[in-house]
Amino acid sequence: MNVTLVEVAPRDGLQNEPEILAVDDKVELIRRSVDAGLRRIEAVSFVNPRLVPQMADAEAVMAGVPRRDGVSYAGLVFNDRGLDRALGAGVDEINVVVVATDSFSQRNQGCSTIAGVERWAKLAARAREAGLLRTVTIAAAFGCPFEGEVSESTVLELIRRVAEAGPDEIALADTIGVGTPDRVRALVAGAAAIAPEVDLRCHFHNTRNTGYANAVAALEAGVRVLDASTGGIGGCPFAPAATGNIATEDLLYSLDRMGIETGVRIEPVIETGSWLGELLGEPVPALLGRAGLFPDPSRPQQ
Amino acid sequence: MNVTLVEVAPRDGLQNEPEILAVDDKVELIRRSVDAGLRRIEAVSFVNPRLVPQMADAEAVMAGVPRRDGVSYAGLVFNDRGLDRALGAGVDEINVVVVATDSFSQRNQGCSTIAGVERWAKLAARAREAGLLRTVTIAAAFGCPFEGEVSESTVLELIRRVAEAGPDEIALADTIGVGTPDRVRALVAGAAAIAPEVDLRCHFHNTRNTGYANAVAALEAGVRVLDASTGGIGGCPFAPAATGNIATEDLLYSLDRMGIETGVRIEPVIETGSWLGELLGEPVPALLGRAGLFPDPSRPQQ
Repeated sequence: MNVTLVEVAPRDGLQNEPEILAVDDKVELIRRSVDAGLRRIEAVSFVNPRLVPQMADAEAVMAGVPRRDGVSYAGLVFNDRGLDRALGAGVDEINVVVVATDSFSQRNQGCSTIAGVERWAKLAARAREAGLLRTVTIAAAFGCPFEGEVSESTVLELIRRVAEAGPDEIALADTIGVGTPDRVRALVAGAAAIAPEVDLRCHFHNTRNTGYANAVAALEAGVRVLDASTGGIGGCPFAPAATGNIATEDLLYSLDRMGIETGVRIEPVIETGSWLGELLGEPVPALLGRAGLFPDPSRPQQ
Repeated sequence: MNVTLVEVAPRDGLQNEPEILAVDDKVELIRRSVDAGLRRIEAVSFVNPRLVPQMADAEAVMAGVPRRDGVSYAGLVFNDRGLDRALGAGVDEINVVVVATDSFSQRNQGCSTIAGVERWAKLAARAREAGLLRTVTIAAAFGCPFEGEVSESTVLELIRRVAEAGPDEIALADTIGVGTPDRVRALVAGAAAIAPEVDLRCHFHNTRNTGYANAVAALEAGVRVLDASTGGIGGCPFAPAATGNIATEDLLYSLDRMGIETGVRIEPVIETGSWLGELLGEPVPALLGRAGLFPDPSRPQQ
């Protein structure tokens, strides 16, 4: 089995860390990720810099990233102004977020879910003309910090609507880390039935220690693209003490041992996680850097 | 689906923590666990107090635990002297560990794997006469800190041998937290084929963020008894910075949301995890105490 990992530490990771990294450090993070074999990087977000100061330097970051064949950089885009910036900065993909509940959508995007769908459709049309890959992310697909449970039928109806704008990919995001494997399997199966022509991608947080089991469940359900964040950085803004995205190195450990091909080498990712922890001033949530690889590569096998 | 959780914080958890709790605190931990609905508790270990000072007070702990119908207390036993003590202290179950590799067995038990099997058989016969439930745990069933990979055939042959002594239960232990879901499924299926008359139990550590996915895989493969440690305490002695057993509260979160019945209430377990963190002087690895339950029980659902 081949699986593509999307490295989201530069965007979803750093956006939710209190420490703001310098442009050079962000570029270094991306360069390290590309060197380790990651081929899709969620690099930046083109949002209002006053609202998200962590991402204010998106153009400068994109100007510094290594351009290599087969490496694709994505930027989050919320509106036409953001898409203009994305086009100017030379991203390869855009990712547009639609939030599954109105309460969360209002707080996160200043509009209802349905207004978010309409905005996505317009951005998708422009991005298609410009030749960009288009991902639409369904945020809070497994639960909402304001409304609680989000029903599968609500999410499936939303998938039907966003699919009308012709995305290349639909990402199901467990934004606050509340999903469990049974729901992942059910939602992936439902999404695949509604939008069989669209690739599915999953985005998990390990806030409640369900993220890695959810990733395994998504693969079993047929998903072949998973988000992960080096070091597991990117804590949840609705649970300040909680851990963040599933960590690239920890996910890789499982995938490698299960014989799943990603093209990514785990050792440099572990090193990057440790380096990130030093930059951010505290150890990252990823466990591989603390526990060490198994089998220990420095010890000959008996 | 009904699943029995074995609470192992009092034994496997505390044995691997540098802090040594007072007898009263250990009894309080056990009382809290029983009050939350846990019905099997790995309470103590009857080992040489000079080798494992954390467990030196096993008799005093057993003298203090609440005796209630349906609650079963287990003690780890390594030899005849330990079994004498276990019988004197009034445990309901014994657990005897056999280590899957000779290198680890020599270091952990001072004998080869095969000598460990013979010791188990003798202890099993005595315990059966005394009317105790008998669990044999295969340690390092998914990998060894000294020999590296442990083949499935090695473990299955060991299961065949330990099954000859008539255990009530065989526990497959990922002692150092290196297993992955595919290996869990394969080993459980193999064990069930070799010893169809014996109940299977699994013991996972989350050292490399595979523990919860492994627990889900074990349930899917038919296992109905899982070990867990409140707070996730019990770090790995071979990876000093690593996290410990899978946490009872985090496992419960997943099981509850998947509709799997355990009879255990999650909220008092979360409280006990926080209490344990205060006693041990640092936050426990479990994530539910930091992230909070979902849906938030204090917030009315819309």
